[in-house]
Amino acid sequence: MTEARQGAAETRHPTGILERHGPIGTQRQEGPEPSSDGQGPGESDGRETAGPEGQEAVALLRESRASVDPELRSAIASLPSSIRRTALYHFGWQHADGTPAAGNAGKAIRPALVLTSAAALGGAEARAAAVRAAAAVELVHNFTLLHDDVMDRDTTRRHRPTAWTVFGAADAILAGDALQALALRLLAADPHPASAAAATRLADCVMELCEGQHADTAMERRAPDEITLAETLVMAEAKTGALLGCACAVGALYAGAADEDIEALDAFGREAGLAFQLIDDVIGIWGDPRHTGKPAGADLAVRKKSLPVVAALTSGTPAAAELAELYAAPYDEDREELERTALAVERAGGRDWAQTQAADRMATAMQELARAVPDPESAGGLLALAEFVTRRTT
Amino acid sequence: MTEARQGAAETRHPTGILERHGPIGTQRQEGPEPSSDGQGPGESDGRETAGPEGQEAVALLRESRASVDPELRSAIASLPSSIRRTALYHFGWQHADGTPAAGNAGKAIRPALVLTSAAALGGAEARAAAVRAAAAVELVHNFTLLHDDVMDRDTTRRHRPTAWTVFGAADAILAGDALQALALRLLAADPHPASAAAATRLADCVMELCEGQHADTAMERRAPDEITLAETLVMAEAKTGALLGCACAVGALYAGAADEDIEALDAFGREAGLAFQLIDDVIGIWGDPRHTGKPAGADLAVRKKSLPVVAALTSGTPAAAELAELYAAPYDEDREELERTALAVERAGGRDWAQTQAADRMATAMQELARAVPDPESAGGLLALAEFVTRRTT
Repeated sequence: MTEARQGAAETRHPTGILERHGPIGTQRQEGPEPSSDGQGPGESDGRETAGPEGQEAVALLRESRASVDPELRSAIASLPSSIRRTALYHFGWQHADGTPAAGNAGKAIRPALVLTSAAALGGAEARAAAVRAAAAVELVHNFTLLHDDVMDRDTTRRHRPTAWTVFGAADAILAGDALQALALRLLAADPHPASAAAATRLADCVMELCEGQHADTAMERRAPDEITLAETLVMAEAKTGALLGCACAVGALYAGAADEDIEALDAFGREAGLAFQLIDDVIGIWGDPRHTGKPAGADLAVRKKSLPVVAALTSGTPAAAELAELYAAPYDEDREELERTALAVERAGGRDWAQTQAADRMATAMQELARAVPDPESAGGLLALAEFVTRRTT
Repeated sequence: MTEARQGAAETRHPTGILERHGPIGTQRQEGPEPSSDGQGPGESDGRETAGPEGQEAVALLRESRASVDPELRSAIASLPSSIRRTALYHFGWQHADGTPAAGNAGKAIRPALVLTSAAALGGAEARAAAVRAAAAVELVHNFTLLHDDVMDRDTTRRHRPTAWTVFGAADAILAGDALQALALRLLAADPHPASAAAATRLADCVMELCEGQHADTAMERRAPDEITLAETLVMAEAKTGALLGCACAVGALYAGAADEDIEALDAFGREAGLAFQLIDDVIGIWGDPRHTGKPAGADLAVRKKSLPVVAALTSGTPAAAELAELYAAPYDEDREELERTALAVERAGGRDWAQTQAADRMATAMQELARAVPDPESAGGLLALAEFVTRRTT
């Protein structure tokens, strides 16, 4: 455990993890926090202020970046030159013309989860041993971003044009392919005894991410009344929860943890990831544009079948029927209609459901964390990161 | 070594490998042999007749399929259902509607190279141990086919509509991503002592394949006079040679071979792969449509910058200037003009160069094979496969 983490841990309530977890609010912390485009936590620019636990999380993320970036940069430097160019642009380390850029590669929450999980279960030595695995997890995350942007035709990521808009879809697909290979190569070439199990887990996670992305794109094409809440939750868990869980499990593997602790940390990451997604979806409907960089109603305007919307549509209430009718026609720039749509989601119970679900998921996450890491001091870093990604940092 | 291979080996000349290698012809074997679309050997439907060595190769391919298919099918069965559907279609095991299909997954030359290399250096035990690795190599090959077809907008593969035309580009990209993960997962979960080195090598090969595909698509967009022969050869080696070399090296790894023998077998596969590509490019210009399923001049009609064409364009001859002029305008269905183009390539020395290069590459391949496997009996299977892919089987 690092000094900064120990210092921050002292400011916390001493009676354990579970007692410290109250209901989850939907407010984001102060400062700009742009949309994550449904790609999971950690894609914003990190310029937020935060309370003591937020500060601990920010310190953990900073330390994690300092540990992982050299490994990541050296891995990317080993790519063939044409692929490297696209990767360096995607990571924000180069401009499109190949000149160096200041870099905004996101908060890198996943490698921080790897390192913090390793530290929680195996101390500083395990954390140091897991740096390469943390880089591998971040490479997988970025491979999926490159491909998802091609499939979704998204044009902006981390405040810049997406790689495929700059280099073409073919080069973005190839860069993603190469980053996946690079990720699994880092683990294959790692002599640590946990590397093969970590590679197996990470490869399984890639398949789940693919399934999640398939379900997401397929759902957007389907009529709202054909979609169940259960499948939407499965999709969100596959798309957002799986890699957060995998990151925690990989850290646990590198700490030499017992199987049940590895699975508990996987569940912790998955549940926290799903809580994040639920809250992000609430913000996508009711969020304050001054705080989120995302106008209120943004998800409604694009008729996104987010979790609160599907919960509302499947509620069997009169408001559900009204919402279905509103969603049947495309948004026509009518702000009043957007407010009516948000109200319908709320009256159909979508907002309450999402907030309760998020709180339940976070409670489960805390239980799993307490199971794997009973000592609150050791669990502090993971707790801070989980609260940070769910924006409960005040 | 299998019985069939031993039987076939007896029909060969006893004095060694190098003596048995004569000049390479451009004729394909009897029977339909459709274009491989520049994707490397083994993508045809296998309905050819062949001489004794061709028969040995056919037997090796059949035995390899029998060994690898169960592993491959079981791996694909483990995919998430939406991804599995696309993969089963791509492998020819299901129709688009999900009903079972007879299956035409190509000749699977790469897994045969893995198993035959393992057998050549480590006997039947090594061959049996390498089945999972052989499946991994075949999964990587098919992942690249799925993605290349999306990038190249190719609509036909193995006589059927390509996966992206049936399921959409997003699902084809996701199926490719998942097949790569599945390939590296097979190796990560393989307890064999060579599995990590094999995974490292396979991941490196994926990056080289990506570089090759990038170079190929970039070259097709560039003006013919900007392209050098050296870079065209590098591209062809990355796109076609690398995975054949990797397949042989992986087999050698599973046989516990010495480093220099692993590298020699990698070089053998690469050189044989390049010889294949050179001959395939010659057939793409002068091939007999009755034998190849590809009309003569097919590559010229699409203005493909194949190896003989680039050799001709960079020859500095008067015919090179004529060829450049013909290539500057798109093909307008004028058969006579196509014949003039083919003649210009020939007069500029493109055909002779390609045939000499192919013979040189095959000679180097044979030298590398003799270095790694000095016993002609043990080397016989790999020799038969190399001659088979370069279609010197009569």
